[in-house]
Amino acid sequence: MSASIIAIDAMGGDFGPHSIVPACISCLAEFPSLHLVLVGQSSLIESLVAGYPSVDRSRLRVVHAAEVIAMDERPAQALRNKADSSMRVGLELLRDGAVQACVSSGNTGALMALSRHVLKTLPGIDRPAMVTAIPTRTGFCHLLDLGANVDCGAEHLQQFAVMGAVAAEVLGKPQARVALLNVGTEDIKGNQQVKLAANLLQQTKGLNYIGFIEGDGLYRGEADVVVCDGFVGNILLKSSEGLASMISERVEQVFTSSLLAKAIGILAMPLLKRLQVELAPAEHNGASFLGLQGIVVKSHGSAGPEGFKSAIRRALREIEEDLPKRLYGHLGDQLL
Amino acid sequence: MSASIIAIDAMGGDFGPHSIVPACISCLAEFPSLHLVLVGQSSLIESLVAGYPSVDRSRLRVVHAAEVIAMDERPAQALRNKADSSMRVGLELLRDGAVQACVSSGNTGALMALSRHVLKTLPGIDRPAMVTAIPTRTGFCHLLDLGANVDCGAEHLQQFAVMGAVAAEVLGKPQARVALLNVGTEDIKGNQQVKLAANLLQQTKGLNYIGFIEGDGLYRGEADVVVCDGFVGNILLKSSEGLASMISERVEQVFTSSLLAKAIGILAMPLLKRLQVELAPAEHNGASFLGLQGIVVKSHGSAGPEGFKSAIRRALREIEEDLPKRLYGHLGDQLL
Repeated sequence: MSASIIAIDAMGGDFGPHSIVPACISCLAEFPSLHLVLVGQSSLIESLVAGYPSVDRSRLRVVHAAEVIAMDERPAQALRNKADSSMRVGLELLRDGAVQACVSSGNTGALMALSRHVLKTLPGIDRPAMVTAIPTRTGFCHLLDLGANVDCGAEHLQQFAVMGAVAAEVLGKPQARVALLNVGTEDIKGNQQVKLAANLLQQTKGLNYIGFIEGDGLYRGEADVVVCDGFVGNILLKSSEGLASMISERVEQVFTSSLLAKAIGILAMPLLKRLQVELAPAEHNGASFLGLQGIVVKSHGSAGPEGFKSAIRRALREIEEDLPKRLYGHLGDQLL
Repeated sequence: MSASIIAIDAMGGDFGPHSIVPACISCLAEFPSLHLVLVGQSSLIESLVAGYPSVDRSRLRVVHAAEVIAMDERPAQALRNKADSSMRVGLELLRDGAVQACVSSGNTGALMALSRHVLKTLPGIDRPAMVTAIPTRTGFCHLLDLGANVDCGAEHLQQFAVMGAVAAEVLGKPQARVALLNVGTEDIKGNQQVKLAANLLQQTKGLNYIGFIEGDGLYRGEADVVVCDGFVGNILLKSSEGLASMISERVEQVFTSSLLAKAIGILAMPLLKRLQVELAPAEHNGASFLGLQGIVVKSHGSAGPEGFKSAIRRALREIEEDLPKRLYGHLGDQLL
């Protein structure tokens, strides 16, 4: 495997470099051909890196950026006022060819706005989309858009479908079954937007479009790629995270409800713990921005080191498969 | 308590009268002042009722209806072609004042179309909405609309908000905190529809509007009433059902993965079973149609007798509180 170089926004997320530096060190050990460029407040980053004296510094570089974009900062403000933010400097390294991908767990809206501004979209793409893999009964489903685009037309849903199918292929799912999220599976169901999009998808050559899917069908694993506008996708993802987290909490409560239940819980909880990990998809897999001239992976803001490592692994996979180039090829064939 | 009379569409749902008759018998025993009118194929219903010789037949009447609306029948077809369906006859009994509410576990789209046609909406209401109670970390949240209206304007969301608040009050939650479902909680977030609706809700007098809520905030219990259009609500509800059901399945798998796990499962599963019941809200609570000139409660199509009983209890509560009259009063004060 040839060397891969990834820029890391080391200041993003709820825990910043304290969580990101250990994840990076661990990834360097896991992938001998990986090089990382950590972008952010260099003195802080260097002091954390110094805690790992055995790290191969020929594969870990620190680039200073004086500013940090806050998790609740308005994207427009981040775009206008912070020319030297860790996020922006990381994206500029990508634009200039110094790295092959950029990974950030920072402010999602700002990352999308800066990515569009710094990298630009691929020809034929109006709006980049955000995609992640959600666990289903039979494996995973790639859901997009997750919130980048809240007022979509049918032609945007078509672009998302094509991009989602290519991303699924890159992640090991050729001829992915693509479905449109709707309130029923019959042709007459749905709002204007999905009815128009269904027409477009039926006509998109080379796309394995299987029709409408409902919210429960998604979790039954009836499709590999599920397409919706960013408003619906964001609400589906966040409500699923909220429900999974509520169920985890309730399960723990069940096993503290009496002395006997506690005793059973000591045996049962270790078995249930790994389920909790599987059930928080966005925390544990990265999400990709598709449709940009470059590879940008978003890690969840509250991700710990394991979650951040998943995002780096996702970026590595996209570099190996040259995802933007493959997207560009398909967009030309299928949309233009 | 004075007598309450409810019409039951005995032919609806996945199991029809085989599930509905036992539920009805059990409700008659639970509520001494309840009277039921079972509508459907009388010979079949009578033969099932005959299995309960101790039932008080002065409180259980059977009304014959020759036709049944299939679960996958198009609403327009059900409306045009089936004048003698159990669903329609039940609604006509309600319209004519022979009963005070109608409960059905039949085809949702057909029930909505027939309810509008037979009962008509309250003055000021363009579109009835469907609401159910969803379990949250702190109790319940009343979510509407659940799929009756897939292309809503901001003024419809305002009507839903007012109706949802009244329904929550009737079910024991005065001064309910009302929120609009969105992809973020800041003012700038969201699509055009929710931004316009937020403006309207801020100006609605007497409404305890608390702003935007995200999908995870709903499950954290941050609001008592959550308002969205039927497209989004249906997808949130069905994906939540699908996820909860997937998690149940996975939990059971965890406890069959080895001999030791099976042994632990024998102890743990009984504790977890009641969680499964809590986590399938629509199967276990009824959903109400709000905004009609009459009380219509929808039970889940796959509900067993316990689920159907919950729907009857919900109808009883709405009769006691005279929900349509209270809605009418609030609509006049808050919307006109």
